[in-house]
Amino acid sequence: MIGLTNYAGVMESLMNSAEEKQPSSPLTNSWAKKQESSKSQKPNGVGGFVLVHAGAGYHSESKAKEYKHVCKRACQRAVDQLKAGALAVEAVAAALVELEDSPFTNAGMGSNLNLSGEIECDASIMDGKSLHFGAVGALSGIRNPVMVANRLLSEAQKGKLSAGRIPPCFLVGRGAHDWAVSHGIPPCPSDKMATKFSLSAYKRNKRKMELAEKMDTGHNQTKKRRQSSENGNGSGCLDTVGAVVVDLEGNVAAAVSSGGLAMKHPGRVGQAAHYGCGCWAENACHMNSYSTAVSTSGCGEHLIRTMLARECSAAMQSEDAHQALLEAMQNKFISSPILASEDRVLGGVIVLRCCRCVEAQPSQNFQGILVEFLWSHTTESMCVGYMSAQDSKAKDSEHKVPVCNSVLFALLCSICSPPPALPPPHTLT
Amino acid sequence: MIGLTNYAGVMESLMNSAEEKQPSSPLTNSWAKKQESSKSQKPNGVGGFVLVHAGAGYHSESKAKEYKHVCKRACQRAVDQLKAGALAVEAVAAALVELEDSPFTNAGMGSNLNLSGEIECDASIMDGKSLHFGAVGALSGIRNPVMVANRLLSEAQKGKLSAGRIPPCFLVGRGAHDWAVSHGIPPCPSDKMATKFSLSAYKRNKRKMELAEKMDTGHNQTKKRRQSSENGNGSGCLDTVGAVVVDLEGNVAAAVSSGGLAMKHPGRVGQAAHYGCGCWAENACHMNSYSTAVSTSGCGEHLIRTMLARECSAAMQSEDAHQALLEAMQNKFISSPILASEDRVLGGVIVLRCCRCVEAQPSQNFQGILVEFLWSHTTESMCVGYMSAQDSKAKDSEHKVPVCNSVLFALLCSICSPPPALPPPHTLT
Repeated sequence: MIGLTNYAGVMESLMNSAEEKQPSSPLTNSWAKKQESSKSQKPNGVGGFVLVHAGAGYHSESKAKEYKHVCKRACQRAVDQLKAGALAVEAVAAALVELEDSPFTNAGMGSNLNLSGEIECDASIMDGKSLHFGAVGALSGIRNPVMVANRLLSEAQKGKLSAGRIPPCFLVGRGAHDWAVSHGIPPCPSDKMATKFSLSAYKRNKRKMELAEKMDTGHNQTKKRRQSSENGNGSGCLDTVGAVVVDLEGNVAAAVSSGGLAMKHPGRVGQAAHYGCGCWAENACHMNSYSTAVSTSGCGEHLIRTMLARECSAAMQSEDAHQALLEAMQNKFISSPILASEDRVLGGVIVLRCCRCVEAQPSQNFQGILVEFLWSHTTESMCVGYMSAQDSKAKDSEHKVPVCNSVLFALLCSICSPPPALPPPHTLT
Repeated sequence: MIGLTNYAGVMESLMNSAEEKQPSSPLTNSWAKKQESSKSQKPNGVGGFVLVHAGAGYHSESKAKEYKHVCKRACQRAVDQLKAGALAVEAVAAALVELEDSPFTNAGMGSNLNLSGEIECDASIMDGKSLHFGAVGALSGIRNPVMVANRLLSEAQKGKLSAGRIPPCFLVGRGAHDWAVSHGIPPCPSDKMATKFSLSAYKRNKRKMELAEKMDTGHNQTKKRRQSSENGNGSGCLDTVGAVVVDLEGNVAAAVSSGGLAMKHPGRVGQAAHYGCGCWAENACHMNSYSTAVSTSGCGEHLIRTMLARECSAAMQSEDAHQALLEAMQNKFISSPILASEDRVLGGVIVLRCCRCVEAQPSQNFQGILVEFLWSHTTESMCVGYMSAQDSKAKDSEHKVPVCNSVLFALLCSICSPPPALPPPHTLT
């Protein structure tokens, strides 16, 4: 079993707008107002936080710079949205679009090719405020699968369709493509979504497969499979992308997008489209003190069968987030009886959890949202970036700019410590 | 909110074979032997139990007789398998094939048609012993979708594919169809899967939709949707099918299959293909005293978002199964914050839970498996049947033959009482 690495950070996002300080104006109500107003109406306070990932797997040194750049851009896109007064779910979708548009990530443009040399994408998004969810699976010919998932989510929020039909939350294949186009999302020719890199990786993988199958000629099926599994670990290209966001008012959202495993069978759907497995977001409520958002990456089948996103989210209600994530990764993933027959358990998560806190200051009362962000993975590397909306010069600040820990992760991890004890949480809704 | 109805029964399945009485021969080992042996080697004892459903929804009086017949046949098929020494997972698949083959159920043959007049099926199966899972979504042109799900499950158990590729657990659309055919499952022309009933229902639904949309002309989109939702409740045809089985050794398995909601958008995937939502099966282990198996039916989107199968399974570890199911249905489904915006929450579950018990008898020690079976639904009716493998003349016994409670359910429920207190459970593995 490979080791578990983990990093945790804490950031306190203080909001001091006049509106926030009025106890007679509960946040849920002020949100309702904001949702009705146009984006041009900038909120009085600036707040929010984004954490993104460009996959748990193996990231080559040669591409590390590109991953850093795309993580930075994704964080910036989400922060731009947050500053314009967008909800967490809109900001997380914006981050995902940037990640999908990069030809270096395994999502949207430049996704892994399947066994037939085609691109089929999975994506999902969850809104912690409404608890609505949208997902697409095995979707071809759409540049930004997360936009379709997001549109499914928002359409479902409008209520039933004609004749009392319940709107779908999960569409796949050709049907998903046609639904997207009929809802104004432009199609993109599949050949434009493949890149020089993805095409050469496909040729390389095909040769590898043919060689593996040739080597096994004469052996029986069981032996063949066992030998093959020793030849490769299937973890080379697990660079699924995802993000978690908390907005000014403390709403959380999560999203994930993936081209799936290289050389997957056509029609295979991975965790990125699976409810509770690819992402999870849940605002605090009377049952949960913390708002939580999780996005996963890794081997889809392992993440599906352990429902890792939801498990990590549930674990985050414990007091010590760092310890809770370590235990969740160990007990619910690495040592899960569900994956007992697997030789390597491949996955990673990014996690955000928030709670409202009130601190008495000498001059005035500050009302803030305490944001904790963590990640953990069993794979060789995991590429993450993070940014606070309060940073006007984000790129110049050592700790608050988006950073990529794909290579430096082991070092960072060795110096990390559990987050400080939290003040008593206040429920958000 | 509509009411919750619930029924519970308890059956003690006593096994008195010489092999079972030897404490030095743990059951997991004796199973391993059985798996290696051929089916013709009938086990020494005869045991096992099956519980099936033909959907939670609305079952017309005119079709009640047909539902009873198909439930009986499905139970008999599973019991035949159990008597031949099959594992729970094989028996549950056999029951599902029978249910899918009926032109009266909304699964396989005679499934609901989608918006384009096509049949697209979802199905999944879970083995409580290996905890493996297989699922297909939006699958056309295959008579028995559960056979594809079952084949995905068994292929995944064989280990990795060539070049270390991880076998899929979930396939959709055309890819799922092609995978099935390449694995020896014969295709079935789609027009042969439609029935006189499903075609006439399609025409009726289409007219209803057109009428609803015509009536709404001139209203804005929001109003249109609200009015439409009042015109219909979408619950007319929720007769998804499913089954839960425990075999002689106490292994459990669950499966579910559905043609999905009538007039669904092409590519829509419902709970029947969704991990943790359509079915769940988990043998007892060091963490869980009881083996549990669950299969759901109802509105796919509601069942997905609440992960009802897994939630009910988890609840079944409480001592009082009857109370635990009532609470799970109330707290995790009907009153779930996830479905707060829904005007009607539509769903039903069948549940099996088992534990090993040892009772001192005057002459000898009996080792038995205590089987409890329950169901619960929020829909107008739910059609269930059940049978024990110990009954040679199943059809003649009032309480042990498969019975259909679709119409009589309210009456049965009013006279049911919580199951008796259980003896201390013994873990199975």
